Amino acid sequence: MNSNNAGLATRDQTVDSSSGTSYVRRFSQEGSRYRWEGVDLKKYKEEGTHFKSVTRQNLFSDESLQPCELRYFEIEPGGHSTFEKHVHTHAIIILRGRGRAIVGDSMEQVQAFDLVEVPSRTWHQLQAADDEALGFVCQVPCERDRPIRPTDAERQALSEHPTLGGIIRL
Amino acid sequence: MNSNNAGLATRDQTVDSSSGTSYVRRFSQEGSRYRWEGVDLKKYKEEGTHFKSVTRQNLFSDESLQPCELRYFEIEPGGHSTFEKHVHTHAIIILRGRGRAIVGDSMEQVQAFDLVEVPSRTWHQLQAADDEALGFVCQVPCERDRPIRPTDAERQALSEHPTLGGIIRL
Repeated sequence: MNSNNAGLATRDQTVDSSSGTSYVRRFSQEGSRYRWEGVDLKKYKEEGTHFKSVTRQNLFSDESLQPCELRYFEIEPGGHSTFEKHVHTHAIIILRGRGRAIVGDSMEQVQAFDLVEVPSRTWHQLQAADDEALGFVCQVPCERDRPIRPTDAERQALSEHPTLGGIIRL
Repeated sequence: MNSNNAGLATRDQTVDSSSGTSYVRRFSQEGSRYRWEGVDLKKYKEEGTHFKSVTRQNLFSDESLQPCELRYFEIEPGGHSTFEKHVHTHAIIILRGRGRAIVGDSMEQVQAFDLVEVPSRTWHQLQAADDEALGFVCQVPCERDRPIRPTDAERQALSEHPTLGGIIRL
């Protein structure tokens, strides 16, 4: 027991902010979706039809404060992110649910708190399980290149891949 | 049901990596502690006695890939991080447990998935509840200044703060 505990009059209060300023954005669930107060629910991408049932929330609003962003993506059951690659990397922490991470030539089942590293210039896609949403935080550099999609020739080769051909959603 | 599901022969396998390369670091619990395969358990800081019962895990090993790091800190019940400030900011996601975030003049109770933003040059400390660990991910810029601790005069003023005086652990 810490000796400072003697003074903990505010121990059971949810918030005690003498300045009135809050530095906490509280987590909640809206229906089945993970949400945070004051954080907008956004489209996964402004354009494109190569994904299914994905939403985005940019967790820390003032992106000028750090050279990276932390975004939360939630993929509904049966949904998937765009199959794509880019020069920048992804550092991903799964927050909820189950699904698959396709990265390069590998496909791995993932679940809550697993980490996924997407290297530079490497094809990747995240897919939710058919019966459960997949939610994850993804760190990216604020300054980053735009994703590219497979060419027709690459799509053909990917569809014939011995293990991933039937799994990738293009 | 996605039409691609017809080909999901590997659906129930944990890993199907045709290249043998894994991009996933799996989460597990060792005793009560959150751990990840291949991630070292480190001291919170190499020196200093101003904290109590805190460990650190740097989740993504190749820190050259992005201009920020994601570290996981776990504070045992009754423990706390160093009371300090610095020019760089923190973007924090609570992953487990309950505790308090002291930031500037505010003290707020936090729990799993709440977000905490620590602005530049702002005193802060995280404290675990007495009966539960507090685990959180903290994003920081790779290039950052060293924390500073309160001077004797600042310690005196802090100890007399009307709401935080009995709570801050110096």
